[in-house]
Amino acid sequence: MLKKTHTSLVLILFLMTFGAQTGAQKVERLEPASWWIGFNNPSVQVLVYGENIAALRPSVDYPGVQLERIIAVENPNYLFLDLKIAPEARAGKVNVSFFQGKKERTSATLELLEREEDSASREGFNQSDAIYLIMPDRFANGNPDNDEIKGMQEKPDRSEPYGRHGGDLEGIQNRLDFIADMGFTSIWLNPVLENDQPQSSYHGYAITDFYQVDRRLGSNQEYKELVDAGRQKGIKMIMDMVFNHCGSQHWWMKDLPTHDWVHQYPEFIRSNYRLSTVSDPYAAKADLSLTTRGWFDTTMPDMNLGNELVKNYLIQNSIWWIEFVGLQGIRMDTYPYPDKEAMAEWVLRVKAEYPDFTIVGESWISEPSKLVYWQKDFPNQDGYNSQMKSLMDFPMAEALGSALNEEEGWGSGLQRLYDVLADDHLYRYPKDLVVFAENHDMGRMAHFYNSDTQKMKMAIAFLGTVRGIPQWYYGSELVMTGDGAASHGAIRQNYPGGWPGDETDAFTAEGRTQVQNEVFDYLTKVMNYRKTSEVLHHGNTLHFLPEDEVYVYFRYLNDQAVMVMLNNHADNDTAVDLSRFSEILRKYSAGTEVTSGREYPSLTHITVPAKSALIIELE
Amino acid sequence: MLKKTHTSLVLILFLMTFGAQTGAQKVERLEPASWWIGFNNPSVQVLVYGENIAALRPSVDYPGVQLERIIAVENPNYLFLDLKIAPEARAGKVNVSFFQGKKERTSATLELLEREEDSASREGFNQSDAIYLIMPDRFANGNPDNDEIKGMQEKPDRSEPYGRHGGDLEGIQNRLDFIADMGFTSIWLNPVLENDQPQSSYHGYAITDFYQVDRRLGSNQEYKELVDAGRQKGIKMIMDMVFNHCGSQHWWMKDLPTHDWVHQYPEFIRSNYRLSTVSDPYAAKADLSLTTRGWFDTTMPDMNLGNELVKNYLIQNSIWWIEFVGLQGIRMDTYPYPDKEAMAEWVLRVKAEYPDFTIVGESWISEPSKLVYWQKDFPNQDGYNSQMKSLMDFPMAEALGSALNEEEGWGSGLQRLYDVLADDHLYRYPKDLVVFAENHDMGRMAHFYNSDTQKMKMAIAFLGTVRGIPQWYYGSELVMTGDGAASHGAIRQNYPGGWPGDETDAFTAEGRTQVQNEVFDYLTKVMNYRKTSEVLHHGNTLHFLPEDEVYVYFRYLNDQAVMVMLNNHADNDTAVDLSRFSEILRKYSAGTEVTSGREYPSLTHITVPAKSALIIELE
Repeated sequence: MLKKTHTSLVLILFLMTFGAQTGAQKVERLEPASWWIGFNNPSVQVLVYGENIAALRPSVDYPGVQLERIIAVENPNYLFLDLKIAPEARAGKVNVSFFQGKKERTSATLELLEREEDSASREGFNQSDAIYLIMPDRFANGNPDNDEIKGMQEKPDRSEPYGRHGGDLEGIQNRLDFIADMGFTSIWLNPVLENDQPQSSYHGYAITDFYQVDRRLGSNQEYKELVDAGRQKGIKMIMDMVFNHCGSQHWWMKDLPTHDWVHQYPEFIRSNYRLSTVSDPYAAKADLSLTTRGWFDTTMPDMNLGNELVKNYLIQNSIWWIEFVGLQGIRMDTYPYPDKEAMAEWVLRVKAEYPDFTIVGESWISEPSKLVYWQKDFPNQDGYNSQMKSLMDFPMAEALGSALNEEEGWGSGLQRLYDVLADDHLYRYPKDLVVFAENHDMGRMAHFYNSDTQKMKMAIAFLGTVRGIPQWYYGSELVMTGDGAASHGAIRQNYPGGWPGDETDAFTAEGRTQVQNEVFDYLTKVMNYRKTSEVLHHGNTLHFLPEDEVYVYFRYLNDQAVMVMLNNHADNDTAVDLSRFSEILRKYSAGTEVTSGREYPSLTHITVPAKSALIIELE
Repeated sequence: MLKKTHTSLVLILFLMTFGAQTGAQKVERLEPASWWIGFNNPSVQVLVYGENIAALRPSVDYPGVQLERIIAVENPNYLFLDLKIAPEARAGKVNVSFFQGKKERTSATLELLEREEDSASREGFNQSDAIYLIMPDRFANGNPDNDEIKGMQEKPDRSEPYGRHGGDLEGIQNRLDFIADMGFTSIWLNPVLENDQPQSSYHGYAITDFYQVDRRLGSNQEYKELVDAGRQKGIKMIMDMVFNHCGSQHWWMKDLPTHDWVHQYPEFIRSNYRLSTVSDPYAAKADLSLTTRGWFDTTMPDMNLGNELVKNYLIQNSIWWIEFVGLQGIRMDTYPYPDKEAMAEWVLRVKAEYPDFTIVGESWISEPSKLVYWQKDFPNQDGYNSQMKSLMDFPMAEALGSALNEEEGWGSGLQRLYDVLADDHLYRYPKDLVVFAENHDMGRMAHFYNSDTQKMKMAIAFLGTVRGIPQWYYGSELVMTGDGAASHGAIRQNYPGGWPGDETDAFTAEGRTQVQNEVFDYLTKVMNYRKTSEVLHHGNTLHFLPEDEVYVYFRYLNDQAVMVMLNNHADNDTAVDLSRFSEILRKYSAGTEVTSGREYPSLTHITVPAKSALIIELE
């Protein structure tokens, strides 16, 4: 508990005695406006917003619900109410009354809900999954009627790369079969919560209401329906959450609860983005402060999770969304930037309610030596434990981007992939890393591979078979290009066929070019193979040093094994003598390549064509 | 204990009963031929070599010395005797008799010695030291009479870059004042033991007798005299030891004790040098085997420290040299290559006898993520603990080589130094790392800095003040060039003035050029300042992100602090606003630059000239 809390309790007595006003008062916001019975943590902290609300005395009279604590803060327009909900409480509307003396001045309602059966035991995403990442504004416009919402600041403009294009949740829901057929079992959507900002609001990372889906994408209910429909088709939903910052137009920015609700500066101060300052034993406090408290952008005030009320607000918000829409996972944006102890507490509190739920942290750190600091149970000397098992494997992404463009050298070419995997001796949970080649912030595969489909197929083979959870960025199956350094708009293009009247419909084979279908089909084969491959879901890894531009590794489990052979040479088909792999191959006598169906009746030599991959299931 | 030992005991009974021959027999070698009373480990294992010696029964009759175990091996020309020496035994010659039946056939002598007082409590090298690395054949020829030794294979030839040039221990001893005056407190000599190889024997890494200094460098006694003389002048001696391999002309290679004494192959197999295979949880056994059991070179058979007799031989050998010449440190060559458990046991056994002794491991690994595996107490998941506190900081060396040649970028220029230091969150003993820019295997500073003396002086300032133990390679104070990749000869040139008749004598200021004196004098000032600086010996580190090509860090301890400012810009003198460093500078009001004596009466702005360093002692 912060000392502030104690001060606040004193403060409220003061306000109740002397601060009361006589004008009509009302509760403008109660957040969360609903909560569930039966969580491990029986308490919920409700934010109440209304002019001079702190001058009133709140009261709750509902069986099984107890108002344990009333917290007033420096801004009298806020109150925070700690409510304790007994397991035997019944669903219903909890009335919260606000009194002046004995007179009720206003009231608000907290809806008390029953949890869905088995809610707590839901399974998160894991190595058996493959994730499809979608920028919701740019995928498919299922409902053109919601492109423009009255009262919201930014209007649709498909001609503007940084504008809103009209993609929405309904568009995604209509394409669930398309996504499932490609072999994906999870969808990560870039943030869907309200971004009522005047411009560049399409990306979703400047949230202006943490309890409301952006209505240009759909309603809260539509989000829930999308998740439900996905679950029917074997697709898990991973929600992109942002705790580090909110949008500059968030409603509370006009009237902050406390001065320290966000990190404030006399003028805009940008983060230095140097995450090493958090783990570095020698880092200056000044640099560390800039890293963690500087703002990401002028439009994104940096929230202060060192303030317990902010922390509680966000933790509850994440639990609310898990329970309300039925999420299977969370991707946490800029995860190492906020107060690190608060973030670890968040993970623990979510896991206390959903032990098998999965959270993956975006930790954009290229060096494993620095990234490991952020993984659960790494024995950090400062005692910090992030509690976060799953991290985005940026070191692997960087290696993959370079490896296929280079010739083999001491530290270049396929050796990069080998070297990154060799660092797994550090990670306590290497199989929980999410592996990827690109995301919404990076240049697209087709950009850094120069639209070389052979390289793209090799990357698909690698991502589909290497340890970890593969993540794919929508559109790269169409060989979409885009230089992330040049423009975010360039890497967040519309999916052709997603908009009424689009000239081509890349959601169908006929609408795709031959080259697109080549990559699309290869991806589909690999991901669908992966879908049912126990050895890829749970197997261990064995790899051999790349030789002559060929890298060979195995995933194995009990009597099953898959051999992956990558030939990085631009021109040479290479006949690989398999005797070097006898320590594992002696158990097997034949194999079948899983994308071509080609059979290998003997395991003495296998020729890997130039710039390509073979994925061979052994028997 | 290996099972082999047990088998051997059976074997000796067999030989004693049936295998005896009648011809005259003698002990050709007894190693070690001397040992000391009073070690914590009272046992010594003596290798006995003589034709069919295993057919005889050894016996010892000396008060306090007990023959505990006799080990015969597959080659009957060897016996290994475990002797236990009681603390109350007296110095003297221990006669080891070899009997056939009741008849003594031959004998040999083990000399039992008293240890020097305080031998066990000697202090190793540490952060208070600075190390000067010398290739003994190339520094100074103190005794031309030993250049050619009758019966030894390679003759002197100064015209041959890979030949023997005649440098020797006497030459080094004559220059101890020169070395001490430069500010060094330790000398690391490349190996001085016998390398009686037909060619390229000058470098010392192909040892042919582990108990004999190469007579072209001097005698065992001269080595001891050098160490004694150094100690008088405040210089510690670090012996370069090699356990991974011996020379192909080592006497035992003609008649190996056991087949597995060295790793044997049908034909020469070179190591792949991929040290990650040892720590990598996914590495193939085949690759790992090649790393650790492949040979470094055709002339260097790879010794098998998995054989307990080999391991004991080498561990004892290292203790013998520590005690005999009075070493303060060991630099272990190719330290991660031999059996890693044996190497950890070696460290423990040395430290059991000399708790404050220092060993530094050569661990040529560029990535901190992989190097940390090899440092004592790193929580490796496979349970391995190398026990080795001090490692060569190769990641820092690589960073330093690049940093001063680059402009500042996200991961380039001085940021490289910052980033390597930020990885110290991994190391359990970062202050025990040895920092350097180059050694006998790498391109020289003047090569990679293109003889830019400004860069060299910046590197000196950095090495002299950064955490860790600085190591300098002889000759770079003369701006010697040399491309390590092109030729080992090129980086191991003779020190001008070290040979009678040399045209110039760079051991004197007059013999050095103005440019050489500039670097020499700067090095001398920095290292002499360091010599007495408690804050550099023990202080903590605080550093600030490089900005505008300027990197500023502090070493601090209690009320003392040193501020180091590096300006990497090629042309711009930069006026640095010091207010950014207030978290430490608020304690200080003035400073003095330690190489120039320039005073800074206020700490508001300091101008750092282009491409240079300031080392400012604060007050």
